[in-house]
Amino acid sequence: MGLGTVGSGVARILAEKKESITRQVGCPVEIKKVLVQHPDKPRATVMSPERMTCDVRDILQDPEIAIVIELIGGEEPAHRYIQEALAHGKHVITANKEVIAKHGVELLELARKHKAAIHYEASVGGGIPLIAPFRQSLLANDISTLYAIINGTTNYILTQMARTHVDLAQALREAQDLGYAEPNPTSDVSGTDAAYKLAILSSLAFHTHVAPDQVYREGITKLTARDFRYAGELGYAIKLLAIAKREEQGIQVRVHPALIPEDHILAKVDGVFNAVEVEGDLTGRIMFYGRGAGSLPTTSAVVADLIELAREVYRGAEPSFDGYSLSVLPVLPMAEVKTRYYLRMSVRDQPGVLAQIARILGDAQISIASVIQKELDETAQAAEIVLMTHLASEKAMQHALGELGGLPVVAEIGTLIRVEG
Amino acid sequence: MGLGTVGSGVARILAEKKESITRQVGCPVEIKKVLVQHPDKPRATVMSPERMTCDVRDILQDPEIAIVIELIGGEEPAHRYIQEALAHGKHVITANKEVIAKHGVELLELARKHKAAIHYEASVGGGIPLIAPFRQSLLANDISTLYAIINGTTNYILTQMARTHVDLAQALREAQDLGYAEPNPTSDVSGTDAAYKLAILSSLAFHTHVAPDQVYREGITKLTARDFRYAGELGYAIKLLAIAKREEQGIQVRVHPALIPEDHILAKVDGVFNAVEVEGDLTGRIMFYGRGAGSLPTTSAVVADLIELAREVYRGAEPSFDGYSLSVLPVLPMAEVKTRYYLRMSVRDQPGVLAQIARILGDAQISIASVIQKELDETAQAAEIVLMTHLASEKAMQHALGELGGLPVVAEIGTLIRVEG
Repeated sequence: MGLGTVGSGVARILAEKKESITRQVGCPVEIKKVLVQHPDKPRATVMSPERMTCDVRDILQDPEIAIVIELIGGEEPAHRYIQEALAHGKHVITANKEVIAKHGVELLELARKHKAAIHYEASVGGGIPLIAPFRQSLLANDISTLYAIINGTTNYILTQMARTHVDLAQALREAQDLGYAEPNPTSDVSGTDAAYKLAILSSLAFHTHVAPDQVYREGITKLTARDFRYAGELGYAIKLLAIAKREEQGIQVRVHPALIPEDHILAKVDGVFNAVEVEGDLTGRIMFYGRGAGSLPTTSAVVADLIELAREVYRGAEPSFDGYSLSVLPVLPMAEVKTRYYLRMSVRDQPGVLAQIARILGDAQISIASVIQKELDETAQAAEIVLMTHLASEKAMQHALGELGGLPVVAEIGTLIRVEG
Repeated sequence: MGLGTVGSGVARILAEKKESITRQVGCPVEIKKVLVQHPDKPRATVMSPERMTCDVRDILQDPEIAIVIELIGGEEPAHRYIQEALAHGKHVITANKEVIAKHGVELLELARKHKAAIHYEASVGGGIPLIAPFRQSLLANDISTLYAIINGTTNYILTQMARTHVDLAQALREAQDLGYAEPNPTSDVSGTDAAYKLAILSSLAFHTHVAPDQVYREGITKLTARDFRYAGELGYAIKLLAIAKREEQGIQVRVHPALIPEDHILAKVDGVFNAVEVEGDLTGRIMFYGRGAGSLPTTSAVVADLIELAREVYRGAEPSFDGYSLSVLPVLPMAEVKTRYYLRMSVRDQPGVLAQIARILGDAQISIASVIQKELDETAQAAEIVLMTHLASEKAMQHALGELGGLPVVAEIGTLIRVEG
């Protein structure tokens, strides 16, 4: 279902690697039907016309079709088509992060009911094996934390801002020119795309159900070239991190820009690369790294799922079910999350400013780890203060920000970035 | 079979995580018997005496035992016990890199014949999922290269040499004091351990059979503190790399120290950490990173294999077989391998020395990329020359080394290190 870049890639690889896939599976894997909206549209992939259809029933009601690959994207009608395919007892492979993040639990339940399987390796991290490790290799572990760079567009933009000191608008334009950012980049720069992926990964990591709207999200749009300069001076990189942590009372799930120490391995993940670092009680820290998007990496994940499912179909085995949602862990409110903070403010360059700021932070039980003061404009008597704090709760920090904003000597609260790692 | 550190770890985790494992598998997983040499030896793990046995037949001939976990280590009797377990139709899990590297093809064939499975995730890379990705997630890819740091002991030693400028002997002693190196470190420092692991990984990556004695190996014992200083000045790290490359005529498989650029992600893999970087035609470069050894990470891999196999046993499915050896690719002789080289030599500090060296290299078709000359000892008129070459064949370089060693002005050929990345 769907013959866009990934769909075409899958069709091409199935043709090009027919022999090797046949050997891996035990029998040939054939594309019986392809669902498209416009069968007459010229396409890069050669596909005989009789295999093209605009009617989803041609696929759903064909008993010869054992596996349906959904590559339409977006929530509907993809979600409905997946439901119907599972209800017809067909196995489903999808690259659709939005559908899995929003409806994964329901679809897995539906699959189990109809003895079908739903695989979604391609929904997160492109060709990096991520779903499979959680479903298998890491099962003996209790996962405590997951730190991920899972949006290549924003990671490319942030890498360019760090390297070439351009501002966000220019880095975004460059990313768009190179095809690394969509013409409408909202889903990426707002953190929505990363939040879908984190909902999927944290659900797997903690064997629970995390809905995408439970993920706290903050995009990259407030970051300035100056933040990158100061972060660099302090020995940090700035990344859009997707973070999930197991706490005693529940889990934290959040997507936001973060300062991470330059010698942290995630700080080296640059450009369009993705990385997911997981800490298990047995494995310790492990990391998966690679291209998180693009036609070929996503095709790799889809075809891997296909080989696995086709093997099961060939050997007549019933699918094995993993526990997507075995427990129910509450998601902790962001106000209770404790992190360290980087805070940049424009202030009036006059004596006693720092004392006023320090008093407000002190009253909020936030202790300062370091301060840099930067002369901005001598004639305007404006300066910039960059503070690093010790661990403080989000609630305390938000309260302090309100107080700081009310200080006459504070011209502007610039950027607040959490510090991790 | 075997109740050493990993065996004890597996027993402990099966007890501690009984509930979660039962949920994952669908039914409880019980240890029926444990093979030990000395049942009366005091142990950290509590195990009821009636479960201990010194007679392997108690396990092999027990029809209630579905899965055998081999954690004895070493080639024999582990190899024979695995053979017998498979011949009795029992599934086998092993952490034994030596047995898998030497006898993997035979054991997989035996398993297939008896409709049993043999899983060996723990044999390479501790708790890092490596075997499973090759057996599943990466199947759609043609792998072109594999670069790996897969021996934690030597990586710890090399990291210390780079950071603290100590020599090998001292770094080794420190590693032994910390338990990161064995009292007899030969297998690690000679590259033998890494060669076993590379034989396993390259067999999987290229769907062929690579025997451990086909792997070219060179240990870390010739590296000196000065090499780390010069490498650092040149912008390189020194790592013991395990490299497998697909070429038109066959494959390269080699373990040796290598210079890699400091901004390469493998250069950041420090201490006891391991990393495997794979390049597939679809995924591009992906990397797996984590602790490659130790009781808990290895336990994680064994228990993951156990959960997977126990699920299959519970659902009554026949094991699925992957193609460990689907094709036969020749291993290229080392003489034909082309790399760049770092070459350190002690020479007499007199005019014309460099010209003589350059002439020999030029005659061997080796072109020089850069030269550093270091004053060593003014009174003795000794100097040190560090050369970096462009791509050259091993054969040409070995020939040139012979010629250089015969030059009266060359006091000593110091270190030859290949340059990768």
